[in-house]
Amino acid sequence: MTLQAGAIVEALGGELFGDPDRLIARLAPLERAQPDELSFLADPKLIPLLADTQAGCVIVGPSLFEAARRRGDCIVTADPHLYFARLSRLWKQRHGDTARVGIHPSAVVEEGASVDPSASVGALCFVGRGARIGADTVLKARVTVGDGCVIGARCVIQSGAVIGGDGFGFAPHDGTWEKIEQLGAVRIGDDVEIGANTCIDRGALDDTVIEDGVKLDNLIQIGHNCHIGKHTAMAGCVGVAGSAHIGAHCTVGGAGMILGHLTIADHVHISAASIVTRSIFKPGHYTGFFPIDDNRAWEKNAAALKRIHTLRERLGQLEKRLAKSGLIVP
Amino acid sequence: MTLQAGAIVEALGGELFGDPDRLIARLAPLERAQPDELSFLADPKLIPLLADTQAGCVIVGPSLFEAARRRGDCIVTADPHLYFARLSRLWKQRHGDTARVGIHPSAVVEEGASVDPSASVGALCFVGRGARIGADTVLKARVTVGDGCVIGARCVIQSGAVIGGDGFGFAPHDGTWEKIEQLGAVRIGDDVEIGANTCIDRGALDDTVIEDGVKLDNLIQIGHNCHIGKHTAMAGCVGVAGSAHIGAHCTVGGAGMILGHLTIADHVHISAASIVTRSIFKPGHYTGFFPIDDNRAWEKNAAALKRIHTLRERLGQLEKRLAKSGLIVP
Amino acid sequence: MTLQAGAIVEALGGELFGDPDRLIARLAPLERAQPDELSFLADPKLIPLLADTQAGCVIVGPSLFEAARRRGDCIVTADPHLYFARLSRLWKQRHGDTARVGIHPSAVVEEGASVDPSASVGALCFVGRGARIGADTVLKARVTVGDGCVIGARCVIQSGAVIGGDGFGFAPHDGTWEKIEQLGAVRIGDDVEIGANTCIDRGALDDTVIEDGVKLDNLIQIGHNCHIGKHTAMAGCVGVAGSAHIGAHCTVGGAGMILGHLTIADHVHISAASIVTRSIFKPGHYTGFFPIDDNRAWEKNAAALKRIHTLRERLGQLEKRLAKSGLIVP
Repeated sequence: MTLQAGAIVEALGGELFGDPDRLIARLAPLERAQPDELSFLADPKLIPLLADTQAGCVIVGPSLFEAARRRGDCIVTADPHLYFARLSRLWKQRHGDTARVGIHPSAVVEEGASVDPSASVGALCFVGRGARIGADTVLKARVTVGDGCVIGARCVIQSGAVIGGDGFGFAPHDGTWEKIEQLGAVRIGDDVEIGANTCIDRGALDDTVIEDGVKLDNLIQIGHNCHIGKHTAMAGCVGVAGSAHIGAHCTVGGAGMILGHLTIADHVHISAASIVTRSIFKPGHYTGFFPIDDNRAWEKNAAALKRIHTLRERLGQLEKRLAKSGLIVP
Repeated sequence: MTLQAGAIVEALGGELFGDPDRLIARLAPLERAQPDELSFLADPKLIPLLADTQAGCVIVGPSLFEAARRRGDCIVTADPHLYFARLSRLWKQRHGDTARVGIHPSAVVEEGASVDPSASVGALCFVGRGARIGADTVLKARVTVGDGCVIGARCVIQSGAVIGGDGFGFAPHDGTWEKIEQLGAVRIGDDVEIGANTCIDRGALDDTVIEDGVKLDNLIQIGHNCHIGKHTAMAGCVGVAGSAHIGAHCTVGGAGMILGHLTIADHVHISAASIVTRSIFKPGHYTGFFPIDDNRAWEKNAAALKRIHTLRERLGQLEKRLAKSGLIVP
Repeated sequence: MTLQAGAIVEALGGELFGDPDRLIARLAPLERAQPDELSFLADPKLIPLLADTQAGCVIVGPSLFEAARRRGDCIVTADPHLYFARLSRLWKQRHGDTARVGIHPSAVVEEGASVDPSASVGALCFVGRGARIGADTVLKARVTVGDGCVIGARCVIQSGAVIGGDGFGFAPHDGTWEKIEQLGAVRIGDDVEIGANTCIDRGALDDTVIEDGVKLDNLIQIGHNCHIGKHTAMAGCVGVAGSAHIGAHCTVGGAGMILGHLTIADHVHISAASIVTRSIFKPGHYTGFFPIDDNRAWEKNAAALKRIHTLRERLGQLEKRLAKSGLIVP
């Protein structure tokens, strides 16, 4: 399957310099692209690759027009990364490689569930009683949407995701745990993406809420009664404990953890593998993990680390004594 | 659907002060409850909300009786959190919102498996040869119980859980890995809860054992031949490597990790995101993770951290020299 | 079911000292083995158990032959661990306890997918359009293999694994995220094992590649466009971000994390829970996590840690001043 360069700019805009009849067989990364392939240049670090790429056509920003044109055909657009995102979707669409609308015969959709006629419920999915699946939303194969959970429009739920498992709620009693039934549900807005094997628990009383445009990668855990604000994105293996309230436009790096009942402001960015143990009210970039090292060096540092508070005390005493003795001016 | 206040105390005990005919339409948190809703107060931090809640009725402990009664109807009970847990279950039951007994037609139950007639095997579950599912146990949709694995009575297994995958066992050979078939199974006691997409591997020779009353949250990994004692609870994203022996009444916070072949005593509490690298024989509370900070501060501290053992040495030398020189009395 | 000791050495080699007609009913660990059970001794730490084991027969290396023979029957072989691995497979095979060849009727195999006639596709699996499953490969129950993904020969994919979910790719645009369709696939070599609920994302343009002999435990996340070299093994809960290039013969301990776009050389070993934030070009053993401690001690150390860079500065100043004052020879 191929697309003509001219058909691409017709659909997506941008200015084509070169042959509109050029047939594009594939999209490819700059360093490996061939003459029948189209590539893009968004990361400034890759500029040195531009002169030598074999790509038949390259999508570039205005500042790289001349360098790109010197080597061959190009499409000029304000934001090549965004252009490429849209091209990837056009590509998929034109190649008929999109989810089939409707409910796969192997899926189980319980009574009282409502699936928009434009939605796609993949093979071996389970959609519980009273659940609602919005327009143009795609459930890949083997997704669970529990009873009463609501998913908005244009969402994509990857395989193995579990929306609406029971929140983890127990009352301690005489050394045992008594289950608190989780009577809330999960409400997911529009344009949300949920990764493979990611879990979003239903609320205890109120609902767990995922707002519009949130993007969750794979193997993420969202506890009961969490609230995640618009367009917040989380990378794989993140955990968010119950009742955390996370703002809009935040990002959480892979394996970041957010403890329960915390509030995170809008525009907060948490580095990978960092543990958020207190509310963060100020936008910014926060980090906390032990730096990796050669194992032997780590062992020495880890041992010293366990004495670091005594180190601080010893240093303080030394300073005080030297100051007192008049030998050192503090 | 509604429940009368009087019917609640009839079923669950406690003393009702106020109108027994009051209709309760929903359970709700104190701060948002409306006059047709019932709420509870267990966390002392929420006491300030009591005077102003709009709840039609509030469950409180004896010490808050007067304050609660001043504002309206209340149910007095020794342990409001526990009472609420039981009420949540009564609520679910009375509203007919419980798992349907029997094997869903889309589930695959292999020959030689035995499912108690009172158990519920959800849609698209897989129950392997020789597996046994106990009385009143509920497998939500899309659960795997592997060959020969045994699950006790009154358990709840959330969607996507995999009980009895192969343990991770390989013998190194000439730079490759030769698989060790995992010939054991998984044995799960009574009243156990297993979270969504949680995995419990079968043992290599002996069984992996989860004792009565254990509660495991979502996305937890339990390696082969682990033994988890009664009423131990683990939050989401915890990992327990193979052959760990964990006592009873322990708790592990979210994303805590326990390395293999360790022994953890009863009543040990591991904080979230902490890595247990040695056996713990003494009950208590253990922690180990890097505190989060503004990214710039973290970068400075992380850099210093890599030199912390030299810091310790330099400080020690300074102390020694000053003592030797007689300038400072150690 | 039983196997005769003589039949075992006939199939697997090694030298049997003792009764070839001895019936072996089970394989069992040294400390619990009974007279009708066979055990093995590979870990030197377990040598003290040899004299007292009740095992009917013990597999040992040549150096332990005399000690083993003194107590009863034994099989002598160069590598008892490897021998045991092969015995476990023989055991499973002889007991007919192997995956059934063919496609389970409850599995969904899309048009254009190709499944080798010797492969086993378990119950409730999904195999997408154009996917290929190699000879003797086993998909346990409830596995997803996405469109166009290729799995080699003799692989084992545990329940709940998702091969070929969409990579996590979005272009930022005006505070929202625009999806980049993931046009690549996943290519998995021969003799690969993929754990329960593990996710391997398809590439954005190129494929994600898992080479021959790789072993991945449960709940692992492999991002789009990763490349994992031959015979590398990763324990549970590991995360590998997109476009990481990991060498051959590496190991990653449980919950280790590897950030995106990094290169890891062959023969690199990452400790459990360690975060790899930079490329590693030198084989070796690398570690980085906060050591666990009694919670009170941790709190003191964590507080001091936040000031560690000022500690370093203060110590440096003290040294400088003392050197300047001539009181201390540096």
